[in-house]
Amino acid sequence: MEFLKILEDIYNEALQQPKTGQVATSMPELALINPDKFGLHLVTLNGENYAVGNADEKFSIQSISKALTVALAFSKLGEAIWERVGVEPSGNPFNSLVQLEYEKGIPRNPFINAGALVIADILVSELKNPKQDFLTFIREISSHETIDFNLEVAKSERQTGFRNIALANFLKSFGNIKNDVDEVLDFYFHQCSLEMTCKELAHSFYFFANEGKTKSGKQVLNKSQVKRLNAIMQTCGFYDESGEFTYKVGLPGKSGIGGGIVALYPKNFVIASWSPRLNEKGNSELGMFALERFTTITEMSIF
Amino acid sequence: MEFLKILEDIYNEALQQPKTGQVATSMPELALINPDKFGLHLVTLNGENYAVGNADEKFSIQSISKALTVALAFSKLGEAIWERVGVEPSGNPFNSLVQLEYEKGIPRNPFINAGALVIADILVSELKNPKQDFLTFIREISSHETIDFNLEVAKSERQTGFRNIALANFLKSFGNIKNDVDEVLDFYFHQCSLEMTCKELAHSFYFFANEGKTKSGKQVLNKSQVKRLNAIMQTCGFYDESGEFTYKVGLPGKSGIGGGIVALYPKNFVIASWSPRLNEKGNSELGMFALERFTTITEMSIF
Amino acid sequence: MEFLKILEDIYNEALQQPKTGQVATSMPELALINPDKFGLHLVTLNGENYAVGNADEKFSIQSISKALTVALAFSKLGEAIWERVGVEPSGNPFNSLVQLEYEKGIPRNPFINAGALVIADILVSELKNPKQDFLTFIREISSHETIDFNLEVAKSERQTGFRNIALANFLKSFGNIKNDVDEVLDFYFHQCSLEMTCKELAHSFYFFANEGKTKSGKQVLNKSQVKRLNAIMQTCGFYDESGEFTYKVGLPGKSGIGGGIVALYPKNFVIASWSPRLNEKGNSELGMFALERFTTITEMSIF
Amino acid sequence: MEFLKILEDIYNEALQQPKTGQVATSMPELALINPDKFGLHLVTLNGENYAVGNADEKFSIQSISKALTVALAFSKLGEAIWERVGVEPSGNPFNSLVQLEYEKGIPRNPFINAGALVIADILVSELKNPKQDFLTFIREISSHETIDFNLEVAKSERQTGFRNIALANFLKSFGNIKNDVDEVLDFYFHQCSLEMTCKELAHSFYFFANEGKTKSGKQVLNKSQVKRLNAIMQTCGFYDESGEFTYKVGLPGKSGIGGGIVALYPKNFVIASWSPRLNEKGNSELGMFALERFTTITEMSIF
Repeated sequence: MEFLKILEDIYNEALQQPKTGQVATSMPELALINPDKFGLHLVTLNGENYAVGNADEKFSIQSISKALTVALAFSKLGEAIWERVGVEPSGNPFNSLVQLEYEKGIPRNPFINAGALVIADILVSELKNPKQDFLTFIREISSHETIDFNLEVAKSERQTGFRNIALANFLKSFGNIKNDVDEVLDFYFHQCSLEMTCKELAHSFYFFANEGKTKSGKQVLNKSQVKRLNAIMQTCGFYDESGEFTYKVGLPGKSGIGGGIVALYPKNFVIASWSPRLNEKGNSELGMFALERFTTITEMSIF
Repeated sequence: MEFLKILEDIYNEALQQPKTGQVATSMPELALINPDKFGLHLVTLNGENYAVGNADEKFSIQSISKALTVALAFSKLGEAIWERVGVEPSGNPFNSLVQLEYEKGIPRNPFINAGALVIADILVSELKNPKQDFLTFIREISSHETIDFNLEVAKSERQTGFRNIALANFLKSFGNIKNDVDEVLDFYFHQCSLEMTCKELAHSFYFFANEGKTKSGKQVLNKSQVKRLNAIMQTCGFYDESGEFTYKVGLPGKSGIGGGIVALYPKNFVIASWSPRLNEKGNSELGMFALERFTTITEMSIF
Repeated sequence: MEFLKILEDIYNEALQQPKTGQVATSMPELALINPDKFGLHLVTLNGENYAVGNADEKFSIQSISKALTVALAFSKLGEAIWERVGVEPSGNPFNSLVQLEYEKGIPRNPFINAGALVIADILVSELKNPKQDFLTFIREISSHETIDFNLEVAKSERQTGFRNIALANFLKSFGNIKNDVDEVLDFYFHQCSLEMTCKELAHSFYFFANEGKTKSGKQVLNKSQVKRLNAIMQTCGFYDESGEFTYKVGLPGKSGIGGGIVALYPKNFVIASWSPRLNEKGNSELGMFALERFTTITEMSIF
Repeated sequence: MEFLKILEDIYNEALQQPKTGQVATSMPELALINPDKFGLHLVTLNGENYAVGNADEKFSIQSISKALTVALAFSKLGEAIWERVGVEPSGNPFNSLVQLEYEKGIPRNPFINAGALVIADILVSELKNPKQDFLTFIREISSHETIDFNLEVAKSERQTGFRNIALANFLKSFGNIKNDVDEVLDFYFHQCSLEMTCKELAHSFYFFANEGKTKSGKQVLNKSQVKRLNAIMQTCGFYDESGEFTYKVGLPGKSGIGGGIVALYPKNFVIASWSPRLNEKGNSELGMFALERFTTITEMSIF
């Protein structure tokens, strides 16, 4: 069966699903999104692109950005980043402070908020103009020059993100934030405000499936490094639903509370979905459904 | 490069590693094992077998048995088993009671002791002669008729396994053990006492790599079921070092405190290792080393 | 105002309270008790006795026995008992295993179940005929020869007390139970099955108010020791409602899930109440009410 | 024996104790204090004052201020304050975020940092000029007009108090801080910077021992309210050493990391001590020693 047909079938099937999930309400900008948006974009390593639904509308990628910041930090510092953040699933919700307290300020992995703040701190140290340089990196790996921060979202997060402010200060109290807390938070709130279409998102993650090389041929990470980040996405990419996603979908991926999910099959493809209704674990309901169907129908899973 | 040559190189390289790990001391039978034993066995899906070192000596597979009991339970009851045990990594050591208390007696996954006890309870309910029938199952899927329990080990565990007795009674207090606690523990202590060689272990796990079908052609689980168990092994198979194993080795697998590790590449191979020295997380030190080298050299990883 | 009049007023006031609490259901013997039983008994150090309601009916004192076992253990071993159990409030429900795990098998205090099991273990070591000797001790300090275990309750607890069996085995795994687990549990289940009337209960605790001396003149503990046990009752006597009881009543005391509460004002009096309906923390609803009223009306509180 | 003689004996005995404790190092201002300072001041309700050692030197009262802010908040709002903070011991160190997370932003009691921040928030809402009005209150209840904040200490705490900044933002994320986080923190850092002599401290706490009435005759709280705050001091005043202090000393009290401790015997006396060396729980080593000796020698304890 052809990929486009499969995506169309899944799309139609998805529209029949009960709409029980809720749009994220933590920020006004997210809360106002039309909850019934739904798009899918598939890019294969032999250059084909397939899309259905609202695949060309911009949305807030939020936590999906954590996979991109860790890739950039890993390319700068290599294995040294694991001295400040672990690679183990946390078994707890994404913004839990409990584990951090028991484990003396070393976050379990780079995909919980605490870990992403440490990675943000690393980039603030390593980059000359952190926000701008990160944006340049994203545009380069995706070959999409219009990708940008949403400054309203970044500002809104700054005003309401008390949990993240708490986390950053808590990390600082353990000495695991080196820069000024406000500067690190500013970078973090901007990275989370990145907006992409499903197409742009799939293209941004192309190098994770392509042994470290972007669509345009740039080697971002080496083979071994990409394998390792894919592994972390597999075990930690979906908060305390990482096991469930691995069980059902069987591909490494990353989700965000804007309703985006991206997953990839090494040496084969990247697939991005967007649907703002979230399940109780904070992952896109239709996205989870669509990706499970996709790997079940195509039998293309790493397991 | 040929597989045998690769295994030999890894074997020799491994012998040069510092011997910092300790043999498990929880039972006298394990504590007395020669700590320098080391063997590797590889079986490919096209029927080749390669071995180095002490690959044909029996050892106590301990927790590795949990992957086999869950396979049998899954084949009997299907998805219903997930009502009583989860599929999420625990983020805690293998015998932690903490999480169980917060989560009302539903263990995080079938590979922590609490989860394995629930699976044991299911098998005690489902099997006519639980211990004998389980042994028959193991012999059948591996085509090795001499595989057996070590009754001394089972007895020893019964006398010293206070933590497991505590866990089983705790689960019973939540109603998540249905049978008599002592009967469930007896089954559990026997499954953990199973002895295999690296070869037998690799053959026992053949069906996980072969879409559910054993070497002799028996369909134990269907494709989708096997994919799902492999996924759980990936996220939960190595206690609170599952992320690390996934990061370094990039294959689903399962370890035991007897020093065994088995890992598999779907549609390709199963590899079993045995070396009794354990790292501080309770996983075989040389086993971890050897498998990381193997997937790095061969570039055969799922990520 | 006279004590009898005060008790009568409180009794009548208590009968008007909403009956929202539930009788303990953990054992059939407790679940069958008439929930509307209510009695109060006051004994003053100058020898007066006052009673209202069902003050002369036997009930299961359950956890109240923990104050009596710790008194006996303290009289035998002195300060050495604090090497195996702490004197800090736990901040957790009475049968929590969480804290025990983090704190390596040293229970926070002798009034949570884990701590009481360690005290039971001490008595099993120290007493020749543990159960009989403990009973003799109780009869002696109270001057009530008919006080006895309820063997049906002890047996019932043995059959359903999986949480306590779990706790005892967990403690054993940390080495903080020295004797056979079953023997310790047998003692513990018997001590909890003790039956007393409000009068007998008040008399049993007389020495806590009387600087260590019983009504009949026997010195059970010295002044300093009694002060210390009263202090622990104050901070730990009511599970995770100890602060609330201290806040409202302002006297050291101990409660049990049989619906009993005993409290005492050093150098002044002991008061015992019984009403089986429990609040959500497991403490007698009317008992809490009556004691708060009593110290408020009489202005007799230690604070 | 006379009180002065007792204090002198204890003072001399204390000087012989091993000096194992460490001065608090969290702020440079505290770290620079001469660790061997030691003073005691006793004020009885019949107007006598007794002092030994450095009882007239100012020191930073730090967390002792929490008892004074909660008294002021209780006098303004009454029982309503318990809707936002509990009265139970926490069983955890003073700045733990763990419990707060499990309990949805309601701190266990007003004496852990989280609880004190909620009380600070209440005072910021209730007072016209929060810092000035609180200072006026302190001067009034103590009849010491020179009591003041140490602005250097307040500033220093602002620059290094990342854990408290984290706590305040965490509380804000649960909605249990109503005002601007920075304003609440500013108030909190100032209250902790209050400096008093042992004499001033003892006089400030006079009303807690005197049924709510200050030395100069002002009724700060009614009898029942004071009894209740004394009760909370008893169960929660010494962080996770509250049980130990209750066990050893047997009086309600409050400690601070500046090395101060104040304790009181209702209707009898207030005693304040100062010695900067802290034990591992953060309480003054010599202070704990001196107060235990005092209640043992005088047999004046509430238990």
